[in-house]
Formats: sequence, structure tokens, C-alpha cells
Amino acid sequence: MVAPRLRSRRLSEPTISRLPIYQRIAQSWLERGESRIDSSRIGELAGVTATTVRRDLAGLGALGTRGTGYDASLLNERIGEALGHDRRYSVAVVGLGNLGRALVNSSHFLIRGAVLSALYDTDPDVIGSTIAGHVVRDFAGPIEQATVAVLCVPARAAQPVADRLVAAGIHGLLNFAPEVLVVPIGTAVHYVDFSIELQILMYHLNNGTGPLGGGVLHSLGVSAGS
Amino acid sequence: MVAPRLRSRRLSEPTISRLPIYQRIAQSWLERGESRIDSSRIGELAGVTATTVRRDLAGLGALGTRGTGYDASLLNERIGEALGHDRRYSVAVVGLGNLGRALVNSSHFLIRGAVLSALYDTDPDVIGSTIAGHVVRDFAGPIEQATVAVLCVPARAAQPVADRLVAAGIHGLLNFAPEVLVVPIGTAVHYVDFSIELQILMYHLNNGTGPLGGGVLHSLGVSAGS
Repeated sequence: MVAPRLRSRRLSEPTISRLPIYQRIAQSWLERGESRIDSSRIGELAGVTATTVRRDLAGLGALGTRGTGYDASLLNERIGEALGHDRRYSVAVVGLGNLGRALVNSSHFLIRGAVLSALYDTDPDVIGSTIAGHVVRDFAGPIEQATVAVLCVPARAAQPVADRLVAAGIHGLLNFAPEVLVVPIGTAVHYVDFSIELQILMYHLNNGTGPLGGGVLHSLGVSAGS
Repeated sequence: MVAPRLRSRRLSEPTISRLPIYQRIAQSWLERGESRIDSSRIGELAGVTATTVRRDLAGLGALGTRGTGYDASLLNERIGEALGHDRRYSVAVVGLGNLGRALVNSSHFLIRGAVLSALYDTDPDVIGSTIAGHVVRDFAGPIEQATVAVLCVPARAAQPVADRLVAAGIHGLLNFAPEVLVVPIGTAVHYVDFSIELQILMYHLNNGTGPLGGGVLHSLGVSAGS
């Protein structure tokens, strides 16, 4: 169903989730006029070890001259290629409650090739209204093809909504509903679970681990303001 | 500032983020009246290998008799202990725009010991209104102590908001604003970035990796509906 892109090496989920963070660090370095950055600095800012950074970046090809750190510009470019940022893709959003509205109105949600293509809801008061420049359509009507769909619907609605989206040819689902989806092989589902994010924070707070303030603080060379 | 809990073993960030998923699987098994589950089954449902599951769970003590899978009830309990679910903690939310409202109205955000303690905003139209049973307070006024605070504010407001929260004695920040925070040592910050979640989905879609539909489908023993 989905044409796989050929790459030299598959990346693991933790690596994939860290690459955009490394890319943001590389970009902020470039904005400051710095052209090189080493793995320890990246690690400090991202809250991981230098070894993890080097391992994550090992599959992306040459990123500078050995011993002088990574070339920030090459790093930015190669991470973009690895994550497929050279492609444009369309995003549909289903459910324009508070969460759906927060997402489509955020300047930060749709970046790097993502283009909002359609909004859907089932509430007659919401259908026909304009949000973020798009007229909200009736989810009971025709579903337009899109690369991925974002589910901002209640848990009980998530499975039937997913079934309709998959039937309409949408094979990538970003699911914010606290519900495990059953979908055909070839459909990718990624879950975002706010309660898990809160638990990760609590774990770091209780154990003094993770990207605590100190690392970021020291590596930016600023003093603590409290 | 924060009293660290003594544990036999520090867990890595990827492990911490997977434990709540394993726990949810254990709970759904118990709900169906199944008392045991093995690492391959958990791996299929969570979209990781059985080896990863065994490694993640290795530090949690005895979880059943060798060769017969994990005891789902013990698994549920031990993960809860490892993540600190035996404690109650208070959560303040700053910023009651669409995202803040979505979070506090979600039945799924505050679970496992988390109790909403206070809501803050700076908008005079929002201050004094009641949301999720709490009267929204003026963020310019006194800030009540809480275990953690959730920042649902625009990027430009995130740093000054974080400074006030830390000064008020709140040392755990869950930051939804796309802004790196500079905080004193001892303050834990965890970032949630929606654009990164979309990029992870796109990577899986393009590469046929991650928790694709097939795994969940087969392990639940149901047929594909599309």
C-alpha cells in the first residue's frame, strides 16, 4: 500500500524521536553563526550522553571532519533527509474540539512539508464553520485522500473513525484518543498519550534523571534565574 | 530540593516511556480474565521486540515463574511502583486556551495519583471562570505550591512563566510550548512537541517500521476491517 523508501539503515524509535531535537539544536547553532557542534554539546542540550548522539548519527553519512565536531549545516540537512522532510505531505484532522483546535491553530504543529488538507467533525454546530482557514466538513460525508490523519476524537469514537479513514485510503494515523486501534497491515499508527508524558516527568523528578535544568543551563552558559 | 527516591536501578528514558504501555497491556489482559502474558505478546502489542520487553522489565524484580510468562497482576503492580504511582501528587495548569482546556477536561490526563490543584491564566475574560470544577486564578497573583506544573502557553511566554513557577517552589515542568526552557539545577523539564510526533508517524509510514497495524491486529486475533 505504502511505497517504502529505500534507505541504507533502519532507525530505531528512540533515534527517530531524538533526531528532530538534534536538528533543532543544529538550527539554533546556525542562527547564532556557529558552524560546528560536537556530540557532547548536543548531548548536554538534548539530555542524553555523547555516545548516544554519536550512535544516533552514525547512519547518516559523513557529517564533518573527524575531531572537529559535526558540521551544523550538514547535520541539519542530513537529518531532514533521513526523516523525509524533502517530501510534502497532507494532513487531515478529525475532531475540532479543544485539542483539534489547539493543533490546527498552532504555528508549530505543521512544519517541514506538512500541509493541512481537510478538517472533519460530526457536530452540526461545528460543520461549515471556518477554522485555521479551512471549512470544517461533515465526517459522515466523503473523505478526501490525505497522507495522514490526526484523530482528536473521544476514545469510544476512535476505532470507527479509524476504520473510515483507512477505507478512504489514509494509511497513517496520529492518535490522541486513549484507545488502541485495530487497523490493517500497512497502516501506521502513532499514539500520543498525555498521561504517559506526565508520568515520564514524575519519574525524572523523583529520580533526578533525564534532561534536568542543569544540563541545558550549563551548556547555554547562562546563570540560573529563580 | 527534590528528595530522590532510592531505587535499585535507574531506568532509561525509552524504558520509562514504554513501561506505562506495558502496564496498560497487563491491565487489559486482567480485564479479560487472563492472568499471564509473555514477552513476545507484550512486544507485538507495544510494537517492540520481545528482547526489548525482557530488558525493560529485568530491573523490576520477580514477575512470575520462568517459562510461563509474566504474572499480569504482578506486572501491573511492579510497574506502578517503579513509576511512583503509589504516591499522590498535585498538578497545576498554566494557560487555559484550547490545549489547557483539552487537558483538564480529559478523563485520561490525570490518572494514577495525579490531582489537579490549580488553574492559572492571564486573560481577564478567563480568570474567575470555572473549568473542570476549578476557578481559574490570575497568574499575576500568588502561585500555590504544587508538585508539577503544565505549561500550555505561547512560546514567548514560556520562559517567564517557568521562572515564576520555579520561584514558587514548583520543580517539575511539563512544557507544551515549543521553547527550550532555562531552569535551575534540580528542576525537571519534560517537553511534548506535536510536530515531532507527526514526524515519527511519517517515518514509520515511509519505512514500514514501528507499531504498524499488523502486529496489533494479529496479536488480538481479529480480522482486518477496511
